[in-house]
Amino acid sequence: MQAEIINTGSELLLGLVQNTHLAWLAAEFAPLGISVERQVCVPDGPPVREALEQALDRADVVIVTGGLGPTSDDITRDAAAELLGRPLETSEEILRALRERFALRNLPMTANNERQALVPLGAQALKNHFGSAPGLYFPPATLTPHRARHLILLPGPPRELHPMMRESVLPLLRSVRDDNKEVECRIYRMTGIGESLVETRVGAAIEKRGDINVGYCARPSQVDFRLIGPSRALDEVEPDILAEVGEWIYSRGDTLEQSVVALLRSQNLTLAVAESCTGGAVADLITDVPGASEIFLAGLVTYANTAKQSLLSVPSKLLEKHGAVSEPVAAAMAEGARRASGSQLALSTTGIAGPGGGSTEKPVGTVFIGLAAQNHPTVVHRHFFPVDRATFKNMATSAAMDLLRRHLQGLPLNAGTESRNSR
Amino acid sequence: MQAEIINTGSELLLGLVQNTHLAWLAAEFAPLGISVERQVCVPDGPPVREALEQALDRADVVIVTGGLGPTSDDITRDAAAELLGRPLETSEEILRALRERFALRNLPMTANNERQALVPLGAQALKNHFGSAPGLYFPPATLTPHRARHLILLPGPPRELHPMMRESVLPLLRSVRDDNKEVECRIYRMTGIGESLVETRVGAAIEKRGDINVGYCARPSQVDFRLIGPSRALDEVEPDILAEVGEWIYSRGDTLEQSVVALLRSQNLTLAVAESCTGGAVADLITDVPGASEIFLAGLVTYANTAKQSLLSVPSKLLEKHGAVSEPVAAAMAEGARRASGSQLALSTTGIAGPGGGSTEKPVGTVFIGLAAQNHPTVVHRHFFPVDRATFKNMATSAAMDLLRRHLQGLPLNAGTESRNSR
Repeated sequence: MQAEIINTGSELLLGLVQNTHLAWLAAEFAPLGISVERQVCVPDGPPVREALEQALDRADVVIVTGGLGPTSDDITRDAAAELLGRPLETSEEILRALRERFALRNLPMTANNERQALVPLGAQALKNHFGSAPGLYFPPATLTPHRARHLILLPGPPRELHPMMRESVLPLLRSVRDDNKEVECRIYRMTGIGESLVETRVGAAIEKRGDINVGYCARPSQVDFRLIGPSRALDEVEPDILAEVGEWIYSRGDTLEQSVVALLRSQNLTLAVAESCTGGAVADLITDVPGASEIFLAGLVTYANTAKQSLLSVPSKLLEKHGAVSEPVAAAMAEGARRASGSQLALSTTGIAGPGGGSTEKPVGTVFIGLAAQNHPTVVHRHFFPVDRATFKNMATSAAMDLLRRHLQGLPLNAGTESRNSR
Repeated sequence: MQAEIINTGSELLLGLVQNTHLAWLAAEFAPLGISVERQVCVPDGPPVREALEQALDRADVVIVTGGLGPTSDDITRDAAAELLGRPLETSEEILRALRERFALRNLPMTANNERQALVPLGAQALKNHFGSAPGLYFPPATLTPHRARHLILLPGPPRELHPMMRESVLPLLRSVRDDNKEVECRIYRMTGIGESLVETRVGAAIEKRGDINVGYCARPSQVDFRLIGPSRALDEVEPDILAEVGEWIYSRGDTLEQSVVALLRSQNLTLAVAESCTGGAVADLITDVPGASEIFLAGLVTYANTAKQSLLSVPSKLLEKHGAVSEPVAAAMAEGARRASGSQLALSTTGIAGPGGGSTEKPVGTVFIGLAAQNHPTVVHRHFFPVDRATFKNMATSAAMDLLRRHLQGLPLNAGTESRNSR
């Protein structure tokens, strides 16, 4: 099935808000075999109706976001009803829910809010648990003589749209899609490997089969390898994937930090981190995971050398002899963090984020990642990420998290990276 | 002038890449008095030509992104040349630059790369310093009989498009725009105040004048208040803005963290942070600023109570009596961070990020922010951010940075927030 997306909202065209609808909706539709063929963003007003009319004649599924609210510039509902000749009727149920919503918040409900209870004849209201405006679904019978078979009007704010899509729209589309193919979507999330290598090792061969749709989503240090196809076909290729790139796969859905926190919890281990060049980004990432407090004891962001000495007991001799960005200092930082916090495991980072501070021997982008663990020799890996400051922090953070993941999973620690054991 | 944006590229429609072009281009155009009236995203192929033809008849300025590369699906250049009846001619200069580029990287230049040296008759090539495909500018003479007066083809990757816009396209549009109005864009960046309050206090009155375009860009804890209009008019309203919302304005362009780091550097002060609920986010934000190492000594992410005791010397009695999320503990953390690091200033955060851990007295969302300084009583502010975990960390981080900013600027510390002095 082909879909078109219409985004309404002057704030999107003013550049005030990033329009994230296309990427999000396309990724949600893909597993259902629905491909987005066109997306258009128009201001609130008459262009909405024009864009809607064109889309209804071109696509099977039309999604409109925004313009369902109470104010006069919210005209999506009216435009669709008028275009399709469906009179608007007030839903007492929605009206009651709206009144309750306002009462609960102790706010007066102005008359314009009642517009949100209007439902075009034959359309179905979709519950909004995170805002006042319900969504609307127009089934095939309401859409003749247009080509489209499903028209869905959704609220603009992502925090209202996302749950409505997952709770109401996707189940609905799943139940009515025209083919009976059991299409499944599998995502293998990897770090420490580039998308081109994933393609060379397994992706190209899978693509050649013809029955599996292959996609790559690459961010700094991370690749999501996405396969869409019949479950049987996906089962067939999975052993190859695991054999070729298995050790880089950290999860099938969880983020890297969720995976690492889950591994620590299941192994009943505690963690501390000592950060220099990542400046708190590793601790920040770990503590993004609810429940991280059970395994994360402390982070020590030792930016200054004096802090490395006083908080982590890094010997001043080491700093003088090797410099703060060095293998021995990374090792001493990780070991110092373990001692200072009493944790079983500790990570450390020390490097040159730039733009200043590089040398010939240690250019901007150089970073040492350390891991200290009970009953294990301390390990230090050297990496080189010659990128901008923000991406550098990001990549160094991923490298630290992945070193810990490999340790926790009992995998070789140094696959695909330049590394050596410390001392 | 009205603009339309056409984004080409199947990867955008597959949801593999976030389409950031609209927001970025619209924000760049606004100060020139150019408003984006429509944006469309189409796959590589015939829809590009169709979208181009429609846009040329509707807008004054048409921007197409993507489809200028060497491969067969890159058809934007050909589609524009054919539609406008401009024969393609090879530019020897571009060809030479392409050959040099490949030689420099020691890569073979395949024949399909030569397509990138083709320039439609009457069009002007725009240099690409960050990729191989040049951009193209079609001046008014090449566009008759269409309405459009400027057609600009740009490469798709943001790291190529952004510099090309700023170096070539914006100066070009600035030189040819039809009005002589000196339009200027001023942005007042604020934190600790909501956009609705900014609108009530000053925005609504400015909007009523009619000669200034008013915009708000709100993120958690932050508002960018944007005015576009003649410099004279902007000068007239500025005193009102400063009188009404001046203390919430942290900069005219810099981020909050850049502003704070600049204030610390100019006052020759050093900082440490002690974080519990923000989990390293404050340190991470500060160290995003190049040169932060000059003022930032250390961050102590004391997630566990034992870490608060051992690293920050928070008395166990305080923790037992008041709990870790309390005013006295926030004060002791900030003071402990100053002592442990030897810094002149220290911030602390302790709160309940959720989803678990709340109580009636201290529900999820409660946070105490502390500030310890030389020769000043320690200050603790209590805030309540009943939002999701990620937004909570974000808002608590902004609140901590803003408390420090107010201190450094000698402003009242507690405007608009529930707060009290500690001990």
